[in-house]
Amino acid sequence: MKGKLTLVGAGPGDPELISIKGMKAIKNADVILYDALAHPDLLEYARPGAEKIYVGKRAGKHAFNQEEINELIVAYALRGNHVVRLKGGDPFVFAHGKEELEYAETFGIECTSVLGISSVNLPGLYGIPLTRRDVNESFWVVTATTKNGTLSKDVFLAAQSNATAVFLMGLNKLEQITAVYKKLGRGNLPAALISKGSLEDGNVIFGTAATLLAKQRLHRLPTPALVVVGEAVGTHEYFYEKVKALEPFNNNAKY
Amino acid sequence: MKGKLTLVGAGPGDPELISIKGMKAIKNADVILYDALAHPDLLEYARPGAEKIYVGKRAGKHAFNQEEINELIVAYALRGNHVVRLKGGDPFVFAHGKEELEYAETFGIECTSVLGISSVNLPGLYGIPLTRRDVNESFWVVTATTKNGTLSKDVFLAAQSNATAVFLMGLNKLEQITAVYKKLGRGNLPAALISKGSLEDGNVIFGTAATLLAKQRLHRLPTPALVVVGEAVGTHEYFYEKVKALEPFNNNAKY
Repeated sequence: MKGKLTLVGAGPGDPELISIKGMKAIKNADVILYDALAHPDLLEYARPGAEKIYVGKRAGKHAFNQEEINELIVAYALRGNHVVRLKGGDPFVFAHGKEELEYAETFGIECTSVLGISSVNLPGLYGIPLTRRDVNESFWVVTATTKNGTLSKDVFLAAQSNATAVFLMGLNKLEQITAVYKKLGRGNLPAALISKGSLEDGNVIFGTAATLLAKQRLHRLPTPALVVVGEAVGTHEYFYEKVKALEPFNNNAKY
Repeated sequence: MKGKLTLVGAGPGDPELISIKGMKAIKNADVILYDALAHPDLLEYARPGAEKIYVGKRAGKHAFNQEEINELIVAYALRGNHVVRLKGGDPFVFAHGKEELEYAETFGIECTSVLGISSVNLPGLYGIPLTRRDVNESFWVVTATTKNGTLSKDVFLAAQSNATAVFLMGLNKLEQITAVYKKLGRGNLPAALISKGSLEDGNVIFGTAATLLAKQRLHRLPTPALVVVGEAVGTHEYFYEKVKALEPFNNNAKY
């Protein structure tokens, strides 16, 4: 008897931000393959005896590469297990969710998926609008790091548009991203960096595209982090106070 | 004693896609103000005696306008109630969530918010990637309808970029959106329309920017709907079969 695969989005950090459907999938799982960004508390929904396998990074290195993860999913499912693949955020936003589903489907394994709240939505939690009436009408979501490690050319286009730019996993590329804005004469655009968003130790720093890097050098906020740049960011209720503040802004009251 | 306001994202349609935190907020509510896009089953989490007030549209007309909703929230909260404002999708993506919070805060009402899965994420559920390795590295989310009812100028910019364009609430503007692509010589870009995504009677039609309108005229899929345009859409596993099909694609197997 063939098992099945359920791809589940764990949400952006806070374990209570997983969906009810995602939680139920974990409860029904025989095997759970989980990422670094899936909150460990979520594993407590698993039934006793369920196998929990960490497939994220350890000390900067992947415990398993993508091909190995694909093979693990298939191997467990073909033994009749219900495999839950638990991924941080939404499984389809800059993740390899679709590749994993497609690979499993080639073996005739039944696949379903459960959406998750993407970290793209985190700015709202901290009072940072992605769009604001009379300011802008769109937002552009860019993965700062391409597969070969270079800066996506979409960073240059987004920096020239009126869309709010959301750079996911932007911490390693913060210097290059902000350099693009400065080079294009847009260094004074309001900007924010959200670290560990939705978690209790989450923090936000505000600045401009030109000054955000200096603040981050001071605070060294940890990953996961996203960077938001655009006029809409400046409409945050306390933007001008926060920009002047040196200390990060831990807005648990809003949350 | 002042009450409080919790702004809750109900998710994109399927009631099981609300977060655990959102469900708990409903359970704790004294008063729930809910939208047309929040699934009615979610109200069943409310405690007996909780007041449930529909503030969405009826027969195309708003039961309450935005100012009235703001006043209702404040009036109930100031009487000591825990008010839950339940909105479809994520409360901060092209919604008035932030305005409602800011208004309540001016009365000293304690405000918190619970993110929701945005309809922006629905394409993943139907096997439609917003980004695909070696194809593109970003997606651009545009509200097709601006407050004065005209087409956002961002539609023209997004149509010229390599980003996948996601048009929320794009059904009324489908003719104008697709006309922009044709005018710019990009009518052959792969496109999809997702109607009632994540619900059991959800449907998807595939086409190109130039042909999607004709298919929608044939099927008249209902709102809520979103439109996705870009090369990444064409990497859907069955895109070329589905484009040729006349009938809509109800992919509950994937879901």
